[in-house]
Amino acid sequence: MSSSILESISPQSCMDRAIQLAWQGRYSCDPNPRVGCVLVRDGRIVGEGFHVRAGEPHAEINALRMAGEAARGATAYVTLEPCSHTGRTGPCSLALIEAGVTRVVAAMEDPNPQVSGRGFAMLRDAGVDVAVGLREEAASRLNPGFIRRMREGLPRVTLKMAMSLDGRTAMADGESQWITGPAARRQVQRLRAESSAVLAGVESIILDDSRLTVRADQLGLDDAEAIARRQPLRVILDSQLRMPLAAACLSEPGRTLVFTIQSEMSERRRRLEAAGAEVVVMPANAEGRVEFTALLRHLATREACNEVLVETGATLAGALLEADCVDRLELFMAATLLGSEARPLFALPGLATMSQQRRLKIDDIRALGDDWRISARPLRDG
Amino acid sequence: MSSSILESISPQSCMDRAIQLAWQGRYSCDPNPRVGCVLVRDGRIVGEGFHVRAGEPHAEINALRMAGEAARGATAYVTLEPCSHTGRTGPCSLALIEAGVTRVVAAMEDPNPQVSGRGFAMLRDAGVDVAVGLREEAASRLNPGFIRRMREGLPRVTLKMAMSLDGRTAMADGESQWITGPAARRQVQRLRAESSAVLAGVESIILDDSRLTVRADQLGLDDAEAIARRQPLRVILDSQLRMPLAAACLSEPGRTLVFTIQSEMSERRRRLEAAGAEVVVMPANAEGRVEFTALLRHLATREACNEVLVETGATLAGALLEADCVDRLELFMAATLLGSEARPLFALPGLATMSQQRRLKIDDIRALGDDWRISARPLRDG
Repeated sequence: MSSSILESISPQSCMDRAIQLAWQGRYSCDPNPRVGCVLVRDGRIVGEGFHVRAGEPHAEINALRMAGEAARGATAYVTLEPCSHTGRTGPCSLALIEAGVTRVVAAMEDPNPQVSGRGFAMLRDAGVDVAVGLREEAASRLNPGFIRRMREGLPRVTLKMAMSLDGRTAMADGESQWITGPAARRQVQRLRAESSAVLAGVESIILDDSRLTVRADQLGLDDAEAIARRQPLRVILDSQLRMPLAAACLSEPGRTLVFTIQSEMSERRRRLEAAGAEVVVMPANAEGRVEFTALLRHLATREACNEVLVETGATLAGALLEADCVDRLELFMAATLLGSEARPLFALPGLATMSQQRRLKIDDIRALGDDWRISARPLRDG
Repeated sequence: MSSSILESISPQSCMDRAIQLAWQGRYSCDPNPRVGCVLVRDGRIVGEGFHVRAGEPHAEINALRMAGEAARGATAYVTLEPCSHTGRTGPCSLALIEAGVTRVVAAMEDPNPQVSGRGFAMLRDAGVDVAVGLREEAASRLNPGFIRRMREGLPRVTLKMAMSLDGRTAMADGESQWITGPAARRQVQRLRAESSAVLAGVESIILDDSRLTVRADQLGLDDAEAIARRQPLRVILDSQLRMPLAAACLSEPGRTLVFTIQSEMSERRRRLEAAGAEVVVMPANAEGRVEFTALLRHLATREACNEVLVETGATLAGALLEADCVDRLELFMAATLLGSEARPLFALPGLATMSQQRRLKIDDIRALGDDWRISARPLRDG
C-alpha cells in the first residue's frame, strides 16, 4: 500500500463522509437519530452505511455488511456513539467487536444521559481503541431535535411563516394565498418531511382546511414517493375543541392529534374521535389555552417527536415566542408590500419600548426564486 | 511589440478599466456624471483619468495630460460620449482630435437629448473612427440619476429606511434610536455622500433634530475628509412651515431648502430665512401637501440634482410609494422583533386585497455586521 494513499484519507474526511451519509436518512429515520458510519482499513474505505428507517439496521450494521471480512482490523468512523442495547439487530458495539474492528472514532456521545458512555465502555472492555469528539459540532447538527429530546425531554420547535417585505402575513381580512412562489413552497414541504410533527392552530383548519401533509409531487426530490410514505404527526392546538368533523387532514394518511383543555368526554369529542382524531387533554395556561410546555413535553416523551414544525398565524406565533418555546424561525419572504393594514408577522402586543425588543440571530438569508428564505433564532436573554 | 501583449488587452478590459476609474468620482463629481477614460496605443495603456470634481478637467483631459505625446495614434476608451461644448477646459472632442487620437470607443451616448451625438459628429468630421455601445449597461449604472435628469427632468429617488425583521421602524411612541449597528450606519453615510440631496420630512427635524449631513468620521473611507467637504443639499418637506428656527441642520455647512405650500411672506418665513433656510413655495396636491413631482422636478431642473436620498418615516415613505415616486429602496434590517404595536415600514392604508399588493424586485440582500441590507425596486404595473 503506497503512503500517498494512506495520506490521502484523513480522519476528518472519513468523519465528513460519515456525516454526509447520515444526512441521507434525514427524511426517513425519524424518530431515531440520523447516523452514518465509514469503515477504513489500510487507508481505504471498505464499508459505509447510514440508518435508513426505524426498525431497520443501524448505520454500523450496514457498513459492516458491506465490508464483510474486510472489517477485521478496520477503524470505524461513526457520527454517534454505537449503541449498547439489544434492538432489532443487537447492540452495534458488540457487532463491531465481533467483526474485528480495532478502533472506533465517534463524533459524539449518545445524548441520552441514561445510556451515554455505555457503548464506549463495551468497546474498550473488548480492547477496542476509542476516540470521541472528531467533528462533534457538525455531527450534532444532524440531530438537534433528537439531542434536545434525549437531554431535556422536549422537541426542537421550528416556526415557519410566509411574509411580505414589510413583515405582513395576510391582508386584514385574512386573505393570504400565494404570498410566496413554488420554490419556497417546495422548501416548506421539505421542512415538513424532516419533521416528526406539524403543529397548527385550529384556526388554520377552520379557515383554510390545511392538510398539513407531505405531498410527494411538491417535494422536488428523486425519492419523493418513498419520503411521503412517512407522514409527520399532525398536531392541532384546539383549546375549545372547535375542530371541524369534516376537516380534510382527518382523512389523510397518518395520525391527527387534537390538543384541548376540554376534559369531559363530550358528544363532540366522541364524534371527533370517530372521525379519526386522537384527542389529548392538556392543562390550561393562565389565558385558558393549552399550556405550550406541557404539549411539547407530551410530544417528546409520549410521541418521540424530535422536530416540531409550527405553521401558524400571528397570534399563536407571537404567543409561542412570548413563552420562549421557539428554537428556530424559518421565514419565507416575498418581494411585495402588503401595507400597514395587513396582518402582522407576530402578535407581540406587550412590547412598548426598545429595551423590550426581541433580539434574534439571523443565520442565513438566501434567494428562492423570487422569494427569500430567512433562517433565524431567538436570542435568549442573559 | 509582441503579439502576446497586443492580445492581452482587449477592448472590453480597457472599457472595464475606464468604468472602474469613473467610479472613483462617485462621491465628488456631482452634479456632473461619473466618467472614466483610458488611452491605449500599441496594446499598452498610455494614459487614464476620471472626472474628479465639477469645475475641474473632464476624464479625457486628465487621460490626455498623462499620455502627453503618446496620445498620438491612440484609441480612447471613454464611458460617455465626449462633450462638444466649451466648458472650463474646452470641448473634450476637440482635445482628443488635437492630441491626435485616431479612434474613440464610447460606452454610451450623452443622455442629454439636446447634445447627444454632437461629440461623435465632431470626432467623425475630423476623421476619427468612432464606435459606441461597448459595456453600455455597466456604464449606464455609473450615472442612473444623471441619465434620468437629462432624459426626464427628474432625479432618481432612493428611499432609505431602517427596520426590524418584522417590518417595523420604531416603537409606537416613536422611539427608534439604534435599530441598526455601525456597519449599517456607515453604509447610510456613504449613500448620503453619493447623493445630490438628502430629503426628509419636517417631522424628522422636529422629533430627532436630524442633521442630514455626511460625517467624515462615519464614512470609513480613506479620503473621508475630502468627501465630506461636499455636503448634499438638505431638502425638508414642510407643507405648513413648522421648521424649528433652531434646527441643527441650519447651521451645518451646505444649503438647506425648505419646501412649503405657504405662499405668503410671513414673519415665520422671514425668520426661517434669516436662520439660514432657503424657502421654496410649491403647488399643493389633493391632500394639501407639497406635490411630490413638482418638488422632484424643481430639484432636477433648478438644483441639478441627480440622486435624491429620502430618509423618512412610514407616512411620507408610504405616500411617496403611492405616488410612484420611488425608484429604489435601500432597507437596513436589524435582527430583532419590535412587535405588532410598533410603527409600520410604510403607511399604505389603501391596500385591502392581495390583488392590490405592491410587488417589488429584490436585487440584493447582504449581511452588514449583525444587520442586513436589502436593495429593491418597486415594479411598475403593466
